[in-house]
Amino acid sequence: MAGYPSSQAVSDIGIIGSGVMGSNLGLNIADKSYNGQPFHVSLYDLNAEQVQSVLATNSSYSNLHGFGGQEKLKDFVGSLKAPRKAIILIRRAESLEARGLRFLGMGVSGGAEGARKGPAFFPGGTLSVWNDVKHIVEAAAAKATDGRPCATMNGKGGAGSCVKMYHNAGEYAVLQIWGEVHEVLKAYGVSGDSQAKLLESWKTRKGGRYEGLLASYMLDITVEVVKIKDSESAGGSNDGSLLISRTMDKTDSKGTGLWSVVEALEAAVPAPSLVAAVLARQMSMLRAERLANSAAVKLPSAQTGSWTAEMEEDLFWAAAFAIIASYAQMFQCLRKMDEKFEFGLNLPATIATFRAGCILQGFLLEPMTKAFEDNPSLENLLTAFGPEIKEYLPRYKRLVSQVTRETSVTVPCLLASLDYIQTMYLPEIPSAQCVSLQRDVFGRHGFERLDKEGRFNAQWPSLQQGDATITTATSAPTGK
Amino acid sequence: MAGYPSSQAVSDIGIIGSGVMGSNLGLNIADKSYNGQPFHVSLYDLNAEQVQSVLATNSSYSNLHGFGGQEKLKDFVGSLKAPRKAIILIRRAESLEARGLRFLGMGVSGGAEGARKGPAFFPGGTLSVWNDVKHIVEAAAAKATDGRPCATMNGKGGAGSCVKMYHNAGEYAVLQIWGEVHEVLKAYGVSGDSQAKLLESWKTRKGGRYEGLLASYMLDITVEVVKIKDSESAGGSNDGSLLISRTMDKTDSKGTGLWSVVEALEAAVPAPSLVAAVLARQMSMLRAERLANSAAVKLPSAQTGSWTAEMEEDLFWAAAFAIIASYAQMFQCLRKMDEKFEFGLNLPATIATFRAGCILQGFLLEPMTKAFEDNPSLENLLTAFGPEIKEYLPRYKRLVSQVTRETSVTVPCLLASLDYIQTMYLPEIPSAQCVSLQRDVFGRHGFERLDKEGRFNAQWPSLQQGDATITTATSAPTGK
Repeated sequence: MAGYPSSQAVSDIGIIGSGVMGSNLGLNIADKSYNGQPFHVSLYDLNAEQVQSVLATNSSYSNLHGFGGQEKLKDFVGSLKAPRKAIILIRRAESLEARGLRFLGMGVSGGAEGARKGPAFFPGGTLSVWNDVKHIVEAAAAKATDGRPCATMNGKGGAGSCVKMYHNAGEYAVLQIWGEVHEVLKAYGVSGDSQAKLLESWKTRKGGRYEGLLASYMLDITVEVVKIKDSESAGGSNDGSLLISRTMDKTDSKGTGLWSVVEALEAAVPAPSLVAAVLARQMSMLRAERLANSAAVKLPSAQTGSWTAEMEEDLFWAAAFAIIASYAQMFQCLRKMDEKFEFGLNLPATIATFRAGCILQGFLLEPMTKAFEDNPSLENLLTAFGPEIKEYLPRYKRLVSQVTRETSVTVPCLLASLDYIQTMYLPEIPSAQCVSLQRDVFGRHGFERLDKEGRFNAQWPSLQQGDATITTATSAPTGK
Repeated sequence: MAGYPSSQAVSDIGIIGSGVMGSNLGLNIADKSYNGQPFHVSLYDLNAEQVQSVLATNSSYSNLHGFGGQEKLKDFVGSLKAPRKAIILIRRAESLEARGLRFLGMGVSGGAEGARKGPAFFPGGTLSVWNDVKHIVEAAAAKATDGRPCATMNGKGGAGSCVKMYHNAGEYAVLQIWGEVHEVLKAYGVSGDSQAKLLESWKTRKGGRYEGLLASYMLDITVEVVKIKDSESAGGSNDGSLLISRTMDKTDSKGTGLWSVVEALEAAVPAPSLVAAVLARQMSMLRAERLANSAAVKLPSAQTGSWTAEMEEDLFWAAAFAIIASYAQMFQCLRKMDEKFEFGLNLPATIATFRAGCILQGFLLEPMTKAFEDNPSLENLLTAFGPEIKEYLPRYKRLVSQVTRETSVTVPCLLASLDYIQTMYLPEIPSAQCVSLQRDVFGRHGFERLDKEGRFNAQWPSLQQGDATITTATSAPTGK
């Protein structure tokens, strides 16, 4: 790398990979400054045309420098001020560290738009590396309503990825919950425009102690999604139909939600809402099986009444509690992973970085941040919403009860979240008492008692004596 | 191993490990014969006293031979007829195969009682080994109502363990479902004896086309569990109270259910009922958190009406469909694993071995076996119960609806199973359409259309223009 005198080095940071994420992130940083000086940014990509195109469409940026193709890599490196810092938009930490480079893993959330306007960053790794780049990352990051940048050092190597993974698992669940809200409204005949109007009003609707409880990016996009008209540019026609009604009902995933819930299952930290969202996507993908099944067996048809203001209020609380339960699980997972991998996570600081820039951004993150700041050892986030649970949980239950009886909607996250809330607030679970004894019968696993320490076995005379017979009926079908 | 002339070899098979499972299995085989000759069985255990004790309490068995302690291992080996065959009640396939021994993995289900009276065996591995031991294993296995032994070669190495793992995942789900039935009955004030009486009547109750639809081992043990009285031998007192009410509500597990559902998640074969059962156990184990949560926030109390005959019928169908859905998922998992690992599974033959001996044994396995025999490419087992679904699914929905509204019971498997049935029979899932478009907004992931091949992107003007602002309310709590 010799031959490039530091006098030529102008850029504060380089970005390797100049696709939509990389170039947007570069432009975002180039818009920012430190001590009054705008940052200079070097973009690199193996594809020289890609870099040329970014420079051409952003020719007003004199602080943006581009390098394309293998032969320009040395020039790119030479353009960086020492200590040279580069953001690489691919994963190759191990090979880099093996070559003696200092590395900081950093999750980014906010999509292409977030990268351009200010995403949330989830770094993890060596603190000294973070200290070298902190002023640039913080400048580029979204700012929460209190002005704090949505970027904090999450802990040692792997911490950033882990935070990003559970951020995404939460995202899967909340997107699914809004999908279920849409499904319920559709089942009751609420039109696309009316759905959008109703959901628009929820952005400022008061929920318990909080104005705009559900205001969030994911609500914003749901409002758009339920009302957008089909168009030629979307592959259809401009006939005024809803695009959503012509969209294939298969929801693929890139695997971050799956990874998160598998880790959670293996760590025994129950996350039923997060799992339900992953399962919902998997079931959606089995469209061929669903079509074959439904051709073979028609389920009884739904019988819905009309949509009412009471139901709207019930649905609002169903969505709110399902989202809160999903976040509660997400945080319990992060705590458990922090224990398991010893990341050194500061949970309130991490949650604070979810408040803007990322997909999860929304009002709810404010009271959640505060709840963990007030009490870092808070048993479960749900507890911070105790007054709302006491007053409005019956509405959630009524909504689930009604749609279960009247419709065939599939609301796995609403169901799993309600069950999570009720189970995790139950001092004694009768079904668990039953299963504990069942296991003692056939496996002699023993059981504990509520009133005494120790492990016990019971006698099961009619099932364990030598002359017992297991009742197994042997009838054949007797006709339809 | 030389020095033991084959003239001394008397036993048809050896058993290494003479604890309760090993000795019961040995006694079971010693009870059986082949071509009129009773099998001779050699028991071995490192613990010599253990072997002595088994021989002493079974002195009437002249065809049972015992060898205890390290120094008797050679005698044990010498006692086996060539080709020497031994069942090892521990897992060490790899080290055995590395030493040139021929190996057959074999899952066993039925608990200690099953081992003694006739369990179900799930072998997998080399066919020639199976052919050497088949006559002994089949003799020891439970027999289904048509006389077929509950033992079949499931396929190449690993197939037997895989069948056993998914058998256990199904077991977790069905135990949980009976636990939930108990929980519902308890919530409506049905006494232990009344619960037992009601469930006893279900053993012969007609369900749709079938007499005794739910007759099964797991129902049998549930009948016992809900009515058994506490006793000194169970660690309590003989005061007439129900043992179940004093049992700790923590249900541990040995991990087979967890392994199964993690594999299923990673293979993208949705098994929500099986997952819900694992999650229910995990939630039950977090008792300290549940107690702390419930001390902090009291959920609104339940308001139940009285128990009625209509509800009993509804609950019967809820249990039936939840169990059928769980089995359907179990079989879809086995099919997928068979594809993935190329076991060469013959699904109808495998299901047939679930009909007796094992924990899953019960009437339902009969029509299930027949369904797959009639149509091995049956899309989903649920379809075999089409007439029942059409007629009685509304009862399941009504039950779930009622208990959700009136009680705080936790019925995760009933909820997940209902959702599975409805989702897997839905030709279009509106929530999946919604999530597909949401993902296009922020991730530009694109979506498919129902009316045209290809992958499309839509324009999201109000969310993707440079001047868009994300609505995020910034209110603070307004009271309380």
